[in-house]
Amino acid sequence: MIRLRTGVPLIEIERSGVVESVHTGHLIVLAPDGSVRFSAGEPAQPVFARSSLKPLQAVGMLRAGVDFSAMELTLAASSHSGSPQHQQLIADELRAAGLTEDDLECPPDLPLGVAERRAHLMAGLAESRLAMNCSGKHAGMLLACLRNGWPVSGYLSPAHPLQQLLAGTVGELTGEPIAATGVDGCGAPLFATSLVGLARAFSLLATGGAELRRLAEALRAHPDLLAGAGRAATRLMQAVPGLIAKDGAEGVFAAALPDGGAVAVKIDDGATRAAELALVIGLRQLGVSGPALDELGTAPVLGGGRPVGLIRPVHG
Amino acid sequence: MIRLRTGVPLIEIERSGVVESVHTGHLIVLAPDGSVRFSAGEPAQPVFARSSLKPLQAVGMLRAGVDFSAMELTLAASSHSGSPQHQQLIADELRAAGLTEDDLECPPDLPLGVAERRAHLMAGLAESRLAMNCSGKHAGMLLACLRNGWPVSGYLSPAHPLQQLLAGTVGELTGEPIAATGVDGCGAPLFATSLVGLARAFSLLATGGAELRRLAEALRAHPDLLAGAGRAATRLMQAVPGLIAKDGAEGVFAAALPDGGAVAVKIDDGATRAAELALVIGLRQLGVSGPALDELGTAPVLGGGRPVGLIRPVHG
Repeated sequence: MIRLRTGVPLIEIERSGVVESVHTGHLIVLAPDGSVRFSAGEPAQPVFARSSLKPLQAVGMLRAGVDFSAMELTLAASSHSGSPQHQQLIADELRAAGLTEDDLECPPDLPLGVAERRAHLMAGLAESRLAMNCSGKHAGMLLACLRNGWPVSGYLSPAHPLQQLLAGTVGELTGEPIAATGVDGCGAPLFATSLVGLARAFSLLATGGAELRRLAEALRAHPDLLAGAGRAATRLMQAVPGLIAKDGAEGVFAAALPDGGAVAVKIDDGATRAAELALVIGLRQLGVSGPALDELGTAPVLGGGRPVGLIRPVHG
Repeated sequence: MIRLRTGVPLIEIERSGVVESVHTGHLIVLAPDGSVRFSAGEPAQPVFARSSLKPLQAVGMLRAGVDFSAMELTLAASSHSGSPQHQQLIADELRAAGLTEDDLECPPDLPLGVAERRAHLMAGLAESRLAMNCSGKHAGMLLACLRNGWPVSGYLSPAHPLQQLLAGTVGELTGEPIAATGVDGCGAPLFATSLVGLARAFSLLATGGAELRRLAEALRAHPDLLAGAGRAATRLMQAVPGLIAKDGAEGVFAAALPDGGAVAVKIDDGATRAAELALVIGLRQLGVSGPALDELGTAPVLGGGRPVGLIRPVHG
């Protein structure tokens, strides 16, 4: 059995001068030439990179011949916030292909974005497959099946030809054999890779040839579709020219710059609040700076609604 | 500066046969005679026990002479889920004392309970001080001020006579000096204590003399007011005769049995999902068993809406 070995303290929560919580994890930073610029913990061990794999899987969908628009391609790689715009675009994509929301086969869920979830509930809406953050990926997978005459029913099985293609793509881009195959939260196959391999794949995405450039250009044009308003991935991509950044569940985050410098993070305990800050640590190692990194590099700890401490890097 | 030293792996998240995340932390289990039955990590170091301190603070409010009903006393010790019932009881308590919701001074918030928050939003309601999970504690503090002629304005200052009384009570019940004073999420003073001291205090609450018995009996009569429907503290108290259990933010949980056996937990990263399971580990060390512990001792990990793994004790 693959069992995560815990890493080193990366992020701490300080309240009133007391460090009350600590997040440990793993971080790899690759220089543009592929050499290791910074490493913490054990980034060579296999982890489930969860939704940080989606851009790699989207490359596989392109290889399957799907004629995506740039927006559809971005949504195929997204963990979208479930805004009305996100949902409408995917609904339109399904309808144009003669598919319905139930074909998605992802579980009904509320929107991932905090504000989007709130608006959804206040509008009297319930969980739906369309609102689920992976619905764009599932729509893209379905288009790949239709394009190749593969059965739509059962398309989430690891043995399905689409999933075989996506697994091969993930293995090729990470440059390593897939260590394990599991089931992601949305029901799709999930592949265990090392953070080093994940960073290498993101470096390729950000610098690669024609097929990869198409994806990179789509993501860079639509950072609001890859995540959502206010989310770290979207904010960083809007602030750092050419950056590609993708979050994943259970504390994973990966990013790469157009020069090929790349970062991958896994927080041992799965906390998003720590993964976002650890990604910023990695980006700073690549020489990135500016107001967005300053804003996302720490977060306030509140007491009675007022700042009384910080979530921050352990050696910050 | 007090800086949490990380503990040992306690809880792991297994998905499709891969342990993808791990929570480390600290656990102390005291036998009824006060001896250490089980220890993991470093439970002697000071931590902010957050809302797990509320029952101790409620003892201080009793010492201040507040003539609580059993329900009001339970709410004073609660992190309630923000149900309409919780809110109504506290609103009634304030009105009877000639106070208003704004006197609470806790920050406006949405209900803590997932279902309660959803119902609140679907009813078109926004953040309010009454809905905030600490509103019962703040109401109790205000009653203590009125009872003693202390100023209501500024009652959250650590220098206020009420807060001095509560600090003294926490120090006495834990049997150790307070290591640091900070600001809790609700704006009230927060005291750093060791998990050993916290467990010792809970043991006293569950076995102690008249003043402590009044609190224990109130909590045991109203576990639904101490937390809320479906929450771990409420479910455990409803299932285990005489148990007192209180959760806290940032991965803290404490509990005690009527015989004086006691448990206290701190998860390094602050995760509630891990604190609940770690508390069950501790209760099992005290010989507690049954369906509720089986249900709360693990949690399913979902893939496509179906169980594909478990959140479970590391050595489970």
